[in-house]
Amino acid sequence: MAVNRRIVLASRPVGMPTAENFRLEEEPVPEPRHGEVLVRALWLSLDPYMRGRMSAGKSYAAPNPVGGVMTGGVCGRVEKSQDPAFQEGDIVQGFALGWQDYAIATSAQIRKVDPSLAPISTSVGILGMPGMTAYFGLLEVGRPVPGDTVLVSAASGAVGAAVGQIAKIGGCRVVGTAGSDDKVDYITKELGFDAGINYRTAGDLNAAVREACPDGVDVYFDNVGGPVTDAAFANLAQWGRVAICGQISQYNNTEEGMGPRSLRHVLINQASVEGFLVFRFTQKYPIALRRMARWIKEGKLRYREDVVEGLERAPEAFMGLLQGKNFGKLVVKVADE
Amino acid sequence: MAVNRRIVLASRPVGMPTAENFRLEEEPVPEPRHGEVLVRALWLSLDPYMRGRMSAGKSYAAPNPVGGVMTGGVCGRVEKSQDPAFQEGDIVQGFALGWQDYAIATSAQIRKVDPSLAPISTSVGILGMPGMTAYFGLLEVGRPVPGDTVLVSAASGAVGAAVGQIAKIGGCRVVGTAGSDDKVDYITKELGFDAGINYRTAGDLNAAVREACPDGVDVYFDNVGGPVTDAAFANLAQWGRVAICGQISQYNNTEEGMGPRSLRHVLINQASVEGFLVFRFTQKYPIALRRMARWIKEGKLRYREDVVEGLERAPEAFMGLLQGKNFGKLVVKVADE
Repeated sequence: MAVNRRIVLASRPVGMPTAENFRLEEEPVPEPRHGEVLVRALWLSLDPYMRGRMSAGKSYAAPNPVGGVMTGGVCGRVEKSQDPAFQEGDIVQGFALGWQDYAIATSAQIRKVDPSLAPISTSVGILGMPGMTAYFGLLEVGRPVPGDTVLVSAASGAVGAAVGQIAKIGGCRVVGTAGSDDKVDYITKELGFDAGINYRTAGDLNAAVREACPDGVDVYFDNVGGPVTDAAFANLAQWGRVAICGQISQYNNTEEGMGPRSLRHVLINQASVEGFLVFRFTQKYPIALRRMARWIKEGKLRYREDVVEGLERAPEAFMGLLQGKNFGKLVVKVADE
Repeated sequence: MAVNRRIVLASRPVGMPTAENFRLEEEPVPEPRHGEVLVRALWLSLDPYMRGRMSAGKSYAAPNPVGGVMTGGVCGRVEKSQDPAFQEGDIVQGFALGWQDYAIATSAQIRKVDPSLAPISTSVGILGMPGMTAYFGLLEVGRPVPGDTVLVSAASGAVGAAVGQIAKIGGCRVVGTAGSDDKVDYITKELGFDAGINYRTAGDLNAAVREACPDGVDVYFDNVGGPVTDAAFANLAQWGRVAICGQISQYNNTEEGMGPRSLRHVLINQASVEGFLVFRFTQKYPIALRRMARWIKEGKLRYREDVVEGLERAPEAFMGLLQGKNFGKLVVKVADE
């Protein structure tokens, strides 16, 4: 009997998740019913938003149930199909197939991946949810124009690296923050950012942002929250825009974080701040995917993957992600392509 | 020789302004030159923004110079005119004529007031800068639609009272916060707000806002900042909008205020927050003035003035304003009409 290994939420974390919050279970591989397909996971995406699903508090999506398989985007291969739209061997991607070897899905939960565009692992990365988040968050929420200074936090991450490069394509000056000198070197020397700030060693972050953005921050793309974001608000340009994509520095707080009140900066600069979830742009994904695939082929949009081998290592890798230990888009190789 | 009394900024305040920060001076009444008019002040407007001008820190406008006359909007009568567009006796209003009996102005600094619309003192109130702030901040920044819940802070003040009533005209449910039971009674019993919260006695403000806005806050019009605003953010509805108009609770801080980080609420609700200054809407004022004058005549838009007699009492009245001691639009009667 073929076995499906799956990682379930064993208990809700208090603060930073630990190994005890996860449990590896085995079950028989399920059979697809009429209208369903069975997907063999090849690549599992690990992303900061998953931390939110592990908690019971109010958020934009229902919490992951305790005992339920962990939510996660997967790129995989159709093994069996009871839906005429999908054939055995098709490469597909689904946002909620979960941390497991096999998943049952309907057509509403998956989309076909074109392997000629780029390596299929990118369907959960630069050509998947993180890439769409970067494209639409920057261009439709941040609304940069040529000449703008764009600041992005977690700039070497899956989303941040794409944000910065798209902003460069759009004629902006781009500054990124990251958590190590290696990451700062990567964004400035390999990705073409104009400047980078190592937020762990910069000391006075306000001064560091001011120095890197002498005309102020026209667009701030925020993945992290906390002190980096405080410094961004303190340096907003007149009419600045802030796109709130993530607040990873706050996700493991057991109490509400405190910080300087920054609405005065919003007021005197007539700035705007907007939170967004990428799903609001779903109908426009095909346009963005075509453009981003072209930029990749043209060498204008580069990406870096941090590959972990083996489903069983997903919890450890995810805990590292929350501490910034990954370098590039974190993906788990679940099986050979 | 006719005398011009004027109140100048004697020194910059540290924290709450005191009487020592102001000085009453006398000088000869100036003579208008070619293209200028001499305006006799009748009504002086006192507004929270003036606190910002008293400090040297970065803001949207240059600081009031020490020794210079205090900035202030005035409604007055043309006494002498060297500009053919203005006749002696015309009632005019100017945003920057200052805390003084007489001011020299050019046509760019004043506009004619139509005394048939409403009492002329309203030209610095409900039909002046505060009224325009309410109209455009609510309708163009907050963007309410019928059925929305609109929360406004400092709801019995010049701006807040107009915001709430315009939101009612637009078919919204309206909740206000204010600093006394009398003010809460006023907004609910006289102005037609659906609910009011006395922020000084409410205790748990989060719970008070949640109770008054059970479906969440679709639009928050913020005049105050601080704990009231924290509670508003914690109760934002999905796709909520926040218009940042003022932060009066923070203006007298000598250090940057600290508070709970609220960007997570912005993120999970896909909310937007925007700071605005009313001047961006200058070209649209005539439209708003006509509508608001009609609403006043129809009894749909009421206003309350807190009148202080005598220019010399302006500093004391202004200090009271910063502590919420006024009740309604604070105006100084400088001379008989």
